Amino acid sequence: MWADLRPMGRDSGSGGYRRYAWTAADRDCRAWFRAQAEARGLAYELDRNGNQWAWLGAATYKDVAAQDAVVTGSHLDSVPDGGAFDGPLGVVSSFAAIDELRRRGSEFTRPVAVTNFGDEEGARFGLACVGSRLATGQLTREKAYALTDADGISLPQAMEAAGYDPAAVGPDPERLSRVGAFVELHIEQGRALDLTGDAVGIASAIWPHGRWRFDFAGEANHAGTTRLADRRDPMLTYAETVLAARREAELAGAVATFGKVAVEPNGVNAIPSLVRGWLDSRAPDQATLDTVVAAVEQAARERAARDGVDLAVVRESFTPVIEFEHALRDELNKILGGAVPVLGTGAGHDAGILSTSVPTAMLFVRNPTGVSHSPAESAAEDDCVAGVLALADVLEGLACR
Amino acid sequence: MWADLRPMGRDSGSGGYRRYAWTAADRDCRAWFRAQAEARGLAYELDRNGNQWAWLGAATYKDVAAQDAVVTGSHLDSVPDGGAFDGPLGVVSSFAAIDELRRRGSEFTRPVAVTNFGDEEGARFGLACVGSRLATGQLTREKAYALTDADGISLPQAMEAAGYDPAAVGPDPERLSRVGAFVELHIEQGRALDLTGDAVGIASAIWPHGRWRFDFAGEANHAGTTRLADRRDPMLTYAETVLAARREAELAGAVATFGKVAVEPNGVNAIPSLVRGWLDSRAPDQATLDTVVAAVEQAARERAARDGVDLAVVRESFTPVIEFEHALRDELNKILGGAVPVLGTGAGHDAGILSTSVPTAMLFVRNPTGVSHSPAESAAEDDCVAGVLALADVLEGLACR
Repeated sequence: MWADLRPMGRDSGSGGYRRYAWTAADRDCRAWFRAQAEARGLAYELDRNGNQWAWLGAATYKDVAAQDAVVTGSHLDSVPDGGAFDGPLGVVSSFAAIDELRRRGSEFTRPVAVTNFGDEEGARFGLACVGSRLATGQLTREKAYALTDADGISLPQAMEAAGYDPAAVGPDPERLSRVGAFVELHIEQGRALDLTGDAVGIASAIWPHGRWRFDFAGEANHAGTTRLADRRDPMLTYAETVLAARREAELAGAVATFGKVAVEPNGVNAIPSLVRGWLDSRAPDQATLDTVVAAVEQAARERAARDGVDLAVVRESFTPVIEFEHALRDELNKILGGAVPVLGTGAGHDAGILSTSVPTAMLFVRNPTGVSHSPAESAAEDDCVAGVLALADVLEGLACR
Repeated sequence: MWADLRPMGRDSGSGGYRRYAWTAADRDCRAWFRAQAEARGLAYELDRNGNQWAWLGAATYKDVAAQDAVVTGSHLDSVPDGGAFDGPLGVVSSFAAIDELRRRGSEFTRPVAVTNFGDEEGARFGLACVGSRLATGQLTREKAYALTDADGISLPQAMEAAGYDPAAVGPDPERLSRVGAFVELHIEQGRALDLTGDAVGIASAIWPHGRWRFDFAGEANHAGTTRLADRRDPMLTYAETVLAARREAELAGAVATFGKVAVEPNGVNAIPSLVRGWLDSRAPDQATLDTVVAAVEQAARERAARDGVDLAVVRESFTPVIEFEHALRDELNKILGGAVPVLGTGAGHDAGILSTSVPTAMLFVRNPTGVSHSPAESAAEDDCVAGVLALADVLEGLACR
């Protein structure tokens, strides 16, 4: 399976993947998914939001009783220059787990589906998990239609160009009502499993996370002639705030990052009039996150007063903590022998989006580098096999009783 | 005079001036200069490098004996959204000083010229003082021809489009050999005169200054899932270096500024792989400047080691200290009564470029805000008048004995 998928959307320069929604690389990945489904005699189905389904024990979701289906899968699209595993590992492992169960001769008592959710990374249109958000109604058709890529092409235009009907997009409650459990296997995006020495883990929750824009407004002036005492230099305030974010995150056991900055006029010999920095912060719980962000803002305000700089802080996005269903999580742990590490994660997933509508769980596979969203992400072959076997055990436990 | 010049190249939105070399705004300013020359019966001359001259007591530089001319003037072009005074104050004051000397009935014993040097700010082609650099040979024709603006238009193309002959540019030693003294009046770009309580000052020197590029290379990673301990985040190293630059400049009585930064990939949820910051630093003398830059680099290296970041520092440009001729400076001080503050400056000027070829001096007019390269720069009317009278005294002292 991997051999066919490997060259699709790979940049020969960076070695990273550029599988963006509704592009030629995405089309190739989707054709691969359909071919894998058909090669296994699974019933292929495309839902109204461009998500792909491959059914075992049903021809379409309409054949499935309420909350009866056990669904597994992930996504095939990538971030810019992403790695080979983020997304595809979950889809490949899903098909491989079905192969394993057939090898075992397991008898399915519930319908099972493998899925590929569209546009999970949001690399092209700037919003993550578009396929699952549309299905659950967390993204309206109106807002989806307003999404545009860097070239000004809108989401419906891109869907149409790829041969899909954008008029169909919208909530899909009928389909979701048939799903009794959704399990997403994903490469870990940190090093927790590497540190515990386990090949596979179970997700407890997706940390609450948010993005805050810090606008530091000073006064543009000549970098060569303006006395230090006469300056209102917002770059100084920004720098202090960057260091405060790291310090506060360390103290709280959270993460806080300034990864994006915009400067005006951004001239070598000009004291900036404006420095705009974006804080991305995530923590195990809401209270911790609030504490971190408040402390960073407080440090920024103190330094701003010293620098004669005006500060405005705007929360641009926020996602509260997503706790995966405890019953399903405990069931997975029992199926897997009870000694599997349960860990939180700072990253968003389709599973997080779907968790508002269906019982959802996640399995993580060890990533020894801890690197994510980069060609340097990796998983050992043994660990990938352990992931497939764990997923097979879970599907067997849920769908073959 | 001001009334005609005021609307030229002024942006109605920002209120700032956008008088870039060889644009329509530049053409209007040049026509204004020629009209002012002709209205006073001065002989108008355009030199091979596009600098404008208005002669009193000569029809062309060829009429002038070696080192006999007393020349005054400045520039009419501006930085993006510059103020009304930076440049034009020197040109307007030059014409006004001639008016004043005629009112006094002073008799000229040496030829006098008013000049407008082209492209002093370098806003369009990225290199400052192009007109004076070409004349003194500090900029070769070959390098000048290689200059391009943001739209890819080369300097010779721009000159030609404005009706000037780019084939003529090059060193002008014959012309410069006739100049016995060049005096440039300029609005102060700091607050030194405001602090001493003087309307007018004399320049001692232009501080040595340079630009250094700091490349901080870390590792791109997911901002939500990468443990703090596993990060190699170059934004942290950059932030520490920004604060170190301010601290070291303060300790040394110099200036040091990070006004420009470029980040890759510059994504809200991505730890940067690269942060590139530009340090602009200037000091009263070379040893101090060396000390400041070495201390900033040292602080950056220490933090880089802690952050797991690789640092490369490249000096992109450097201009040694320019001491204005002591004899001329002392003569000006004597003419002006001996009690005029003598001050250094961190900014470059045509006078600094010309000082390598002719005896050169500068007068500064108080700028109470200290703001420069911004519409907020200002000079009181009384101070402008004091500047004109001081310049008239200087011209009288030098050219009417």
